[in-house]
Amino acid sequence: MTNANLQVLLRRRPKGAPVPEDFEIVETAVPEPREGEVLIRHQYLSLDPYMRGRMAEAKSYAKPVELGAVMEGRAAGEVVASKAPGFAPGDIVAGGYGWQRYSCVKAAGLIKVDPKEAPLSANLGVLGMPGLTAWVGLEDIGMPKSGETVVVSAASGAVGQVVGQIAKIKGCKVIGIAGGPKKCQYVTEELGFDACIDHRGDLDAQLDAACPEGIDVYWENVGGPVQAAVFPRFRDFGRMVMCGVISQYNSVEGADSFGGAPGPNLGAVVRKRLRIEGFIVSDKGWPRYGQFRKEMLGWMADGRMTWREDVAEGLRNAPQAFIGLLEGKNFGKLVVKVD
Amino acid sequence: MTNANLQVLLRRRPKGAPVPEDFEIVETAVPEPREGEVLIRHQYLSLDPYMRGRMAEAKSYAKPVELGAVMEGRAAGEVVASKAPGFAPGDIVAGGYGWQRYSCVKAAGLIKVDPKEAPLSANLGVLGMPGLTAWVGLEDIGMPKSGETVVVSAASGAVGQVVGQIAKIKGCKVIGIAGGPKKCQYVTEELGFDACIDHRGDLDAQLDAACPEGIDVYWENVGGPVQAAVFPRFRDFGRMVMCGVISQYNSVEGADSFGGAPGPNLGAVVRKRLRIEGFIVSDKGWPRYGQFRKEMLGWMADGRMTWREDVAEGLRNAPQAFIGLLEGKNFGKLVVKVD
Repeated sequence: MTNANLQVLLRRRPKGAPVPEDFEIVETAVPEPREGEVLIRHQYLSLDPYMRGRMAEAKSYAKPVELGAVMEGRAAGEVVASKAPGFAPGDIVAGGYGWQRYSCVKAAGLIKVDPKEAPLSANLGVLGMPGLTAWVGLEDIGMPKSGETVVVSAASGAVGQVVGQIAKIKGCKVIGIAGGPKKCQYVTEELGFDACIDHRGDLDAQLDAACPEGIDVYWENVGGPVQAAVFPRFRDFGRMVMCGVISQYNSVEGADSFGGAPGPNLGAVVRKRLRIEGFIVSDKGWPRYGQFRKEMLGWMADGRMTWREDVAEGLRNAPQAFIGLLEGKNFGKLVVKVD
Repeated sequence: MTNANLQVLLRRRPKGAPVPEDFEIVETAVPEPREGEVLIRHQYLSLDPYMRGRMAEAKSYAKPVELGAVMEGRAAGEVVASKAPGFAPGDIVAGGYGWQRYSCVKAAGLIKVDPKEAPLSANLGVLGMPGLTAWVGLEDIGMPKSGETVVVSAASGAVGQVVGQIAKIKGCKVIGIAGGPKKCQYVTEELGFDACIDHRGDLDAQLDAACPEGIDVYWENVGGPVQAAVFPRFRDFGRMVMCGVISQYNSVEGADSFGGAPGPNLGAVVRKRLRIEGFIVSDKGWPRYGQFRKEMLGWMADGRMTWREDVAEGLRNAPQAFIGLLEGKNFGKLVVKVD
């Protein structure tokens, strides 16, 4: 424990997959909160695929991180100084900012959390942005009905694990897709999905076996060959919830911000009356955070919502952990325990 | 005028583009209405792209026409005999069935129309299934808001001409896409679209010029290169109303009923929060027919809704006219004047 503000900066924009040299680790002075702000000592930092987009210069839904600036991210920790009414040293909060040890943030963006309700890091996962993403995307786009078949890609990841468990609570048949037998085993045995497909195997054969009746809802986290295998299996009135296409994020940026191969022929969208819809949780999610949190805490208390974290130790390991996330090396919601 | 029932049958399933030999023209006895049915002498028959799907054996949203059966289609004409309460000889109705001179249909499926309100054939176009398709698709999926940019493919066709005029009424900037200078001229001068792009020219350059601000709503009737050129131009929260992909209908049937080349990479659906949604008017359209008809008649009376028909003379010419429809040879809503 030191008094300096350890920070991870964006040193240069990656070409393709990020490498450690794209980041720079520096020690700087601990910032001073201004009027209305709170100084937070981070205990956990969330690492999420969307951050790859922020490292690129291309136009997207959010501004890129500037070169030389601290990497974007949400954190949770303890208030150490406050110039904002309602917050005092010792308060535990989610909403800290950036790949760093300390941040000063406006009180309006903070959520005071009760550490007895759930482990602090859960506020970055199942109770945080990824959990809210799952909840909002199902509520607004997927709309799974009891008896329907829901397929979830990146099923053991931060968002996927919540998506599948909510769909089970709603009475659906839920099929996960994950990489490797360990993740697949976790998805069925711990998360309670009905089956899990290993995307390193024969996707068509496994999908035929797991959902011969077809697919009503597909939660898209990955794109690429998984999308290509799922798409022809939609039933009439199927919904494709487009949350992410992580398989494309490391492609060298083209005109469309992420490159990528052609997608499915859309003729079936007419014939089967499909809906393909993308969303970003920050558009419409946060005003509903209270309702989401209440529902999730209820499911957690009932034992119907579990989760798994992959914890990287120390900020200096954040770049390598993030690089691994984009390669699917994490197993569960990836967080950094901030030293 | 004869007393026989002239019929156009499906003789064999087309391989690729239909040819005249795929149809058979026969004379049969005029049918007798059963209890609850009405016998109609058709005056107009509607020819529409969806009929290509009915000629194929592949699974789709509706049953294929059986080999040797009369081709499916909607007609309008005069009641010549009635065994249904509320209908009497001389009544003018829409809802006759099939590529034939006479049909017996149940009263429940018939709409009695007032010939003073609009020409009878309009009940197969602007006031019929194509008009209802345009109205429902905009209402449920396109949801154009004043000031938005709406692009309509097959803009001079039965559905496209109504789509664009409704979007103009809603205060949108409307860009049509059509084949050849005559159709483009009609779309801007008669229908009042803001611009019309000739899909035989350079699509990218013309789209750049016509909608530099990007596209909020794209009405998809065609698929293929037009879709590929429009897709990258969506603005955030853009909607793609998938009504048809006529450029694919003549491809030799593959596993997915219409074959077709790959579509756009769907990564942009996340980043721009797009919605791509298909629909079939028969799913949710007809219960709202009354509301639609009232609104359309109002716009027609105000001079804000016009239309163009392409009239083929005589049932024997229906196959050739339909073959031309799939090649984009029609100019306006294609109907057959039944002899």
